[in-house]
Amino acid sequence: MNNLESLAKLIRYYSLVMSTEAGSGHPTSSLSAADLMTGLLFGGTFKYDLDNPQNPNNDRLIFSKGHASPLFYSLWAAAGKVTEKELLSFRKFNSPLEGHPTPAFRYTEAATGSLGQGLSIGAGMALNAKYVDKLPYRTYVLLGDSEMAEGSQWEAMELAAHYKLSNLLGIMDVNRLGQRGETMYGHDLDVYRERVTAFGWGAIVIDGHHLPQILAAFEKVKEITDRPVMIIAKTLKGKGVSFIEDKNGWHGKPLKKEELSRALEELGPIDKTITGQISKPENRKPTEQIAQKLRPVSYTGVKGVATRHAYGSALVRISPRFPNMVVLDAEVSNSTFSELFKEVHHERFFEMYIAEQNMVGMALGLSLRNKIPFVSTFAAFLSRAFDQIRMSQYSNANIKFCGSHAGVSIGEDGSSQMGLEDLAMFRTLLDSVVLYPSDAVSTDKLVEAMAEHKGIAYIRTTRKDTPILYRNDEVFRIGGSKILRSNPKDVAAIVAAGITVHEALKAYEELKKENIFIRVIDLYSIKPIDAATLKQAAKDTGAIITVEDHFEAGGIGEAVQSALAGQPVPLYSLCVRKMPKSGKPDELLDFEEISAKAIIKKVKEIAKGRKGSAR
Amino acid sequence: MNNLESLAKLIRYYSLVMSTEAGSGHPTSSLSAADLMTGLLFGGTFKYDLDNPQNPNNDRLIFSKGHASPLFYSLWAAAGKVTEKELLSFRKFNSPLEGHPTPAFRYTEAATGSLGQGLSIGAGMALNAKYVDKLPYRTYVLLGDSEMAEGSQWEAMELAAHYKLSNLLGIMDVNRLGQRGETMYGHDLDVYRERVTAFGWGAIVIDGHHLPQILAAFEKVKEITDRPVMIIAKTLKGKGVSFIEDKNGWHGKPLKKEELSRALEELGPIDKTITGQISKPENRKPTEQIAQKLRPVSYTGVKGVATRHAYGSALVRISPRFPNMVVLDAEVSNSTFSELFKEVHHERFFEMYIAEQNMVGMALGLSLRNKIPFVSTFAAFLSRAFDQIRMSQYSNANIKFCGSHAGVSIGEDGSSQMGLEDLAMFRTLLDSVVLYPSDAVSTDKLVEAMAEHKGIAYIRTTRKDTPILYRNDEVFRIGGSKILRSNPKDVAAIVAAGITVHEALKAYEELKKENIFIRVIDLYSIKPIDAATLKQAAKDTGAIITVEDHFEAGGIGEAVQSALAGQPVPLYSLCVRKMPKSGKPDELLDFEEISAKAIIKKVKEIAKGRKGSAR
Repeated sequence: MNNLESLAKLIRYYSLVMSTEAGSGHPTSSLSAADLMTGLLFGGTFKYDLDNPQNPNNDRLIFSKGHASPLFYSLWAAAGKVTEKELLSFRKFNSPLEGHPTPAFRYTEAATGSLGQGLSIGAGMALNAKYVDKLPYRTYVLLGDSEMAEGSQWEAMELAAHYKLSNLLGIMDVNRLGQRGETMYGHDLDVYRERVTAFGWGAIVIDGHHLPQILAAFEKVKEITDRPVMIIAKTLKGKGVSFIEDKNGWHGKPLKKEELSRALEELGPIDKTITGQISKPENRKPTEQIAQKLRPVSYTGVKGVATRHAYGSALVRISPRFPNMVVLDAEVSNSTFSELFKEVHHERFFEMYIAEQNMVGMALGLSLRNKIPFVSTFAAFLSRAFDQIRMSQYSNANIKFCGSHAGVSIGEDGSSQMGLEDLAMFRTLLDSVVLYPSDAVSTDKLVEAMAEHKGIAYIRTTRKDTPILYRNDEVFRIGGSKILRSNPKDVAAIVAAGITVHEALKAYEELKKENIFIRVIDLYSIKPIDAATLKQAAKDTGAIITVEDHFEAGGIGEAVQSALAGQPVPLYSLCVRKMPKSGKPDELLDFEEISAKAIIKKVKEIAKGRKGSAR
Repeated sequence: MNNLESLAKLIRYYSLVMSTEAGSGHPTSSLSAADLMTGLLFGGTFKYDLDNPQNPNNDRLIFSKGHASPLFYSLWAAAGKVTEKELLSFRKFNSPLEGHPTPAFRYTEAATGSLGQGLSIGAGMALNAKYVDKLPYRTYVLLGDSEMAEGSQWEAMELAAHYKLSNLLGIMDVNRLGQRGETMYGHDLDVYRERVTAFGWGAIVIDGHHLPQILAAFEKVKEITDRPVMIIAKTLKGKGVSFIEDKNGWHGKPLKKEELSRALEELGPIDKTITGQISKPENRKPTEQIAQKLRPVSYTGVKGVATRHAYGSALVRISPRFPNMVVLDAEVSNSTFSELFKEVHHERFFEMYIAEQNMVGMALGLSLRNKIPFVSTFAAFLSRAFDQIRMSQYSNANIKFCGSHAGVSIGEDGSSQMGLEDLAMFRTLLDSVVLYPSDAVSTDKLVEAMAEHKGIAYIRTTRKDTPILYRNDEVFRIGGSKILRSNPKDVAAIVAAGITVHEALKAYEELKKENIFIRVIDLYSIKPIDAATLKQAAKDTGAIITVEDHFEAGGIGEAVQSALAGQPVPLYSLCVRKMPKSGKPDELLDFEEISAKAIIKKVKEIAKGRKGSAR
């Protein structure tokens, strides 16, 4: 049996010392949860294979309040897996012990630090345990009281209750104090109890510094098998050191050397020889999934298909090859066509309702448990989860996003439903893949390529039907492009993607009648980008015109400009520059000057300018 | 007294006819709320000056479920302010009656259509009434049950309760059916009642098709003076037309012509001669605010100041000139330094806690009531509210955003806290202003320029102290830049902003020792951008190097490339390309190759290349 009092004291000692050494960090936020976490990890509840953090049977521990990283690292030190010397590298360049937990530290489940995200990630892991891997591991999420103000928390609450995730436990560290003062509710634990209960969770209210109460709570949780549970713990920020305990003004502030001496004196003798013991989990195997061969893409004889429809069909087609894929949708599966997957694989489709932030958080949790989540909603509404998407890159996520209803070409529904910044958003992510196919064949092939690729990938789909452009055996690769029209006499290269590829082809036909030739490039992979083809086009034609159903900033035009930055060529960007509105798709493409008409006009300007300068 | 039954029937008629004529739209979502809205507008509760939508005393009506736009437009038609002919232009190009409400229609308070945003906007308007304008108008928000899954709703709930906004009324249209099937709770109204109550609101549960109950509810609300109230109404989607009523598969689907005939037969005779009467509000004046002269900027004798600190000081300095400014912060006012404003103008500072989505929504509500909201948090966490920010552009918002702690230069806190995509995010918005000052003087001047400017403006501030570069009387304008170093022998122009301006100046000093000269441009206005100065620099030096503490996509490099697209010049972009981590600011600037060292290296490469080609 572990000596929990001594371990808690050791953990407090580590948390204080490492943050003072770093000269920054959050010792007081660590001290408030020290007893809770000591009780969890070393009180017999937590099962973990310390030598194999990736063991699929391990219980999972997520610090949603990532700023309590001194505590997080100290726990693993108390378990004997991190030395005191390593702790002293906290927050230093190249240390795995970063300011907020990241995967650089091998016991980190997910990068946290943007508040209100850990519960969704945990819910994703719990969903995986219950419905996909069918394993008995449990997921524990440490939450701050301040971060309960984030709406994303309540999304996670409602979805976890909906899916009856009794294998998910939240531990709310109600230390009363936020960064700049008291929270909305201070130590009124009843407010939290009522809300948690109203959202369908079990609630256990305890004194978060009373170890017997803490241990009893973890026991009691095991009896609740029909819903997730929240332990709501009354704690004191800075607990254990009188002059910082429950005091405002001590958020994110380490003790000065002299203050540390005083604090350690108060703590009294520390036993550094003890090691917290954690039992290993049972050795079970996740539900086995066997990969199978695929039927080939087949759009023979089909005239027009919306790429969003092709996305749904592709999910179904590729599913035998990727048995670990799961599909999540935010209550629009009949618009994104992810419902086609649901019809075939109901058990691997999860309805996430209109709560995009939690959808992305849960997808991250699933991804970190080795699933391949495909996440879909309207492109516009993925902006709702930008912070979760941004954070997922720091967890090395393997998530596939699909944004449907891209651009003004959706027509009548109007601006609120038009994704016009999604390419920019996904392009910002380090090493992301951003795809925007123009027809059903390329969509299908690229969905398969996304699944093969390890990392964050985004595919943008179009609402209305578009003609099939490619043969079933055409090859599409991430980072590629297609030259659809080419001629030695090309006066410019039109770089288009998605809906505007069809506009470019229309422009080509019209211009050809006047003996004006243009190169047409289908830039279906916006990132990575096929710089070689673009450079060749620049060299051959002397002018590049990008055409996109997207705002200017961060879109296709700027992506192409970045690719050609080293090789100067005149670049013209046709994109959405006027306030969009309702109307027919073609009216709106004309209005925004991204239609065949606008392309023709620009090409003629260029051709005329050349003639002019030649004269 | 209005004949409410007849009016409700007329409104149903309009909703059906206009959506059938449009060939798209959401008649069933309109029919479920038709009785509720008829009762509200024409039952004696709603006060409105129909000839002056901008009358500050008007009650405000927001359709958070913006897809019920047929109902919204029909209400004003029933009030005699829109003709049936105008209704038939619904969703057509250039009609003010767009697919989802926008300000193109003069009775629209705020553009909606991205769900879960209306309650925050309404809370902002109610906050304005209670604490700023001190007017008795009330704000009504129609909510769908599906959209209650959005976390942003619960942020609005908690903040509205916190500020005791008893002048805010939510009307929840629980029609059970979402887009692709039933909601999480169907017609279980108790779930909503418990949650609403737990979040500190009053709750009144009614039958949403029973006019006496509806009218009684609006009366009862008036008795509740210490908290906001939610009317939770059980309704049927498609109510009034038997073959679509409470039926799945009818979301966002207009009736076909033949179906419409059947539906109208069911509705029976419509009296088109009636007009719904709405009483005018009292004629009160908002609390008067008198603009006063400012003291000038003064950083004389100051060595280094963080631009985030200068932001806070600037808010205080400019406040006499802009008495309608209000300041909102997401629980980090001691980091963004908006607390400096709070100390002086407590009554115009609103703590929004860690709930960024609602903060932006409430800011929009305040802005639409003629306030100038300054909204601050860490740049990284503004990504949390991207959808709200995106939507605010469609409401012609006048909001000033400040994102502090930009870039890897924040140092030890690590990636989760680093704003590295904020410039891209704000640049996507149509007509947005994006500013990134490098010292305290320019920050202060630019904060004033933001307040003067009508529209969405963003300012990015830096965590650490930076030296003062400018004299107190230097002029900074939106769309401007400063040439800090210039010489006929310049081999390249360094285009920097914020923290990297100081790196560029360091590089200048080092290179000068070797008789290599560079132009240094402080591009403090990223959007609009000073294209003339950039073009001149390109012409004079033959090479542009952009340096930024931001990811590549949509950042300064791409903004500069867009500005120079017509005038080809070699462009080199130094930006954050590697996974950021914890460390000292200078270590991280070096690691990401955006420091003086990296600039020097790149300049020498260019200089060497030129010599090489000259040989």
